[in-house]
Amino acid sequence: MTLARHINDELAAWDRDNLMHPTTHVANHARGDTPGRIIMGGEGVYVTDRDGNRMLDAFAALYCVNAGYGRTDIADAMSKQAHELAYFHSFAGHGNEPAIRLAKMIMDRAPDHMARVYFGLSGSDANESNVKYAWHYHILRGQPEKKKIISRWRGYHGSGLVSGSLTGLAGYHARFHLPLPGFLHTETPHYLRRPDADMSEADYLDHLIGALEDMIEREDPDTIAAFIGEPIMGTGGILPPPPGYWARVQEVLNRHHILLIADEVVTGFGRMGEMFGSTYYGIKPDFMTIAKGLTSAYAPLSGSILSDRVFDVLSQGTDDHGVLCHGWTYSAHPVSAAAGVATLTLIDDLGLVARAAKNGPYLKQRLQEAVGDHPNVAEVRGDGLLAAVELMDDPAARAFFPTMSVAPKVADAMLRRGVIARAMPEGDIMGFAPPLSITRDEIDIVAAALRDAVHEVLGP
Amino acid sequence: MTLARHINDELAAWDRDNLMHPTTHVANHARGDTPGRIIMGGEGVYVTDRDGNRMLDAFAALYCVNAGYGRTDIADAMSKQAHELAYFHSFAGHGNEPAIRLAKMIMDRAPDHMARVYFGLSGSDANESNVKYAWHYHILRGQPEKKKIISRWRGYHGSGLVSGSLTGLAGYHARFHLPLPGFLHTETPHYLRRPDADMSEADYLDHLIGALEDMIEREDPDTIAAFIGEPIMGTGGILPPPPGYWARVQEVLNRHHILLIADEVVTGFGRMGEMFGSTYYGIKPDFMTIAKGLTSAYAPLSGSILSDRVFDVLSQGTDDHGVLCHGWTYSAHPVSAAAGVATLTLIDDLGLVARAAKNGPYLKQRLQEAVGDHPNVAEVRGDGLLAAVELMDDPAARAFFPTMSVAPKVADAMLRRGVIARAMPEGDIMGFAPPLSITRDEIDIVAAALRDAVHEVLGP
Repeated sequence: MTLARHINDELAAWDRDNLMHPTTHVANHARGDTPGRIIMGGEGVYVTDRDGNRMLDAFAALYCVNAGYGRTDIADAMSKQAHELAYFHSFAGHGNEPAIRLAKMIMDRAPDHMARVYFGLSGSDANESNVKYAWHYHILRGQPEKKKIISRWRGYHGSGLVSGSLTGLAGYHARFHLPLPGFLHTETPHYLRRPDADMSEADYLDHLIGALEDMIEREDPDTIAAFIGEPIMGTGGILPPPPGYWARVQEVLNRHHILLIADEVVTGFGRMGEMFGSTYYGIKPDFMTIAKGLTSAYAPLSGSILSDRVFDVLSQGTDDHGVLCHGWTYSAHPVSAAAGVATLTLIDDLGLVARAAKNGPYLKQRLQEAVGDHPNVAEVRGDGLLAAVELMDDPAARAFFPTMSVAPKVADAMLRRGVIARAMPEGDIMGFAPPLSITRDEIDIVAAALRDAVHEVLGP
Repeated sequence: MTLARHINDELAAWDRDNLMHPTTHVANHARGDTPGRIIMGGEGVYVTDRDGNRMLDAFAALYCVNAGYGRTDIADAMSKQAHELAYFHSFAGHGNEPAIRLAKMIMDRAPDHMARVYFGLSGSDANESNVKYAWHYHILRGQPEKKKIISRWRGYHGSGLVSGSLTGLAGYHARFHLPLPGFLHTETPHYLRRPDADMSEADYLDHLIGALEDMIEREDPDTIAAFIGEPIMGTGGILPPPPGYWARVQEVLNRHHILLIADEVVTGFGRMGEMFGSTYYGIKPDFMTIAKGLTSAYAPLSGSILSDRVFDVLSQGTDDHGVLCHGWTYSAHPVSAAAGVATLTLIDDLGLVARAAKNGPYLKQRLQEAVGDHPNVAEVRGDGLLAAVELMDDPAARAFFPTMSVAPKVADAMLRRGVIARAMPEGDIMGFAPPLSITRDEIDIVAAALRDAVHEVLGP
């Protein structure tokens, strides 16, 4: 059970000598020592690398290829648009047909209280847009001092300077002067890591809400613009919120006129078995950040969906002050928008949201059956088609391994069995987020590979 | 001479009701009052809107469709890649073939002292990456206090919170809490706006360099990380630097170990009649920001090219501290990279860089002949295929019109004659940046439309 080795030719040398990869050990890559592989094609839940290895991608690349690989419908739509009109800008009210059609499709699917969508390229830039709009909103309403943003430790919202400030992971802060001033982080909602082992779930929820209220009071609510959170934490370890969490959080935010940004980059367009994580968990956001699933990653596209109350203030702002100066050259890019139209159409035609609702519980059940009784498995968790298995040295004593000392080995052992899963930071956590099109047979393959890998690395 | 009016149908209503456009008067657009047009197709330097109007685009959308519209080679390459492998991520050293090939092509074209390219989506995010890398560089070298960034008034570097802080235009700052602390702006280099009418060009250059040195001394050079500038200012009004400007600036920066970011988003890949603005003006940057021309806007793609000295420190940083946590999901997107490979190939095959070198002076000459002797024309300026005509109430007295009171009318009068040019902020400035493929006959059409429009708006 080993994968074919890397071809080391001219292309491999070009890679080492010219390309700086995202979130990579730069020196190792330049020396040719990273485990990275050059992917050449894909079909369904499988990808194929240049060495001829075929792998079941149980993480949909970066939980984004939700419709699966090799979808000709989406590629055809991109090709058609690229041949008709690859680009014209959308500034000063200009537009293109696929962007308008996609905006209509998104707003038809968004909660009723949402008003408009602004298109960006990445989840990071969409979160930055949301912060910019939130600041602008409070300034226009005569409360410029409402400026701080509350995020959460272990939240992931991007890796730019502002979006990385929102992110609550140490690796994205250290040696980058981040977070920037005014970006605060409250506690991670994860019962497994409650401060006191004896705390009940109800007490833990009180504790989380108390910590948030304390932060708001300490900082002064009149200085806080917005709160940002993923409906279910993703990169921080796939952490479903405790029951009742979002209702309690929203009650606090509403009391202090703090806007709520729901980062739906991972959850949007079906991952939870509903169209959005916000509806799944009963969240009524002022902003929804969308990306990944919107195009199944076939083309770069993100969006900021604005609520009525935010849009009304911004719109009035242009009557009072003129043009709202915010725009990327590639906002509402025609080819990306065409990919979005085709993706949302395909999600409907294939019933992928309903499939995620049906197969999500099956994935969690199969992971549970595969490793749930292993002595190093502390938790099998998840909602929708998003699941994680957390490994610990001694779960009963809540004794962790040194972070990321075990999970990467399990990921490697799974890869040797032809299955891609993701070792996630802040613990030893195996993450699963396959294309929404995954079948039960394919889920069985993933669960079997996890079982064998855990036993290989940690013993029976 | 009027354009056909807007079709007002279901699509137009969807646009008003669902889509928030970049840099637009939001309320006017929602009411259906923006002059925006829905563009359906293009060929060469011409675009066609949904009302059947065909317009010569003398600004290449947003100076980005450098290879011209309707390039089947680029669309075919995107289609091929979208069908083979639309997406896999490039994190942890993973990769795809077009991204590697494009990185090699870029580094072959970049100055010899540049080491690697990191791919983003937009010029804004690439500038943010450059600031992040510059901070990281100084932190890794043990000088974390080197953090402030010096930009210039009227520079344009994006519209995010960090990139908008780099931008030196009032509309991008007001009511957004920008610039963020630590982002400084020194003087715009434009002799027309010298502080004293009697100042010689040599004295003016001394004045600019003195102002920069004063700022650095006042702030303390040990607190300054980098200086960012467009080789020739773009959105701020198309302002070629005074002769000798960049040599003098670089001498100051080098003396204080301040890194230099050359924002080549507009100038990269041929607009100046050379591959980069940096070589055209004799700049030796630590970072080069690229976007627009890299794909001719057919797909969203940007890049940060890092110099040897920066790359070496960042690479060593990963040996010392592990993975460099910076990455967008869509970094090195395969379809965008395929568009880049096809675009750079086409630029070579069609000799577009040489054409820009040949036709750039012709454009400036024809604009000069068309309106140079008009009493309201203060300056016809530009380098390469990038030119501007600045209008004033009384050029001899350097008496300006109220900003943007005249140029939008001239742009509208040109549009009615079937030519798109751009009214630029910070004065009354008509900007020209056509596709590099523009012919001399087409340049003649642009010049004639400008002449007629200026006479219509301002009299003979």
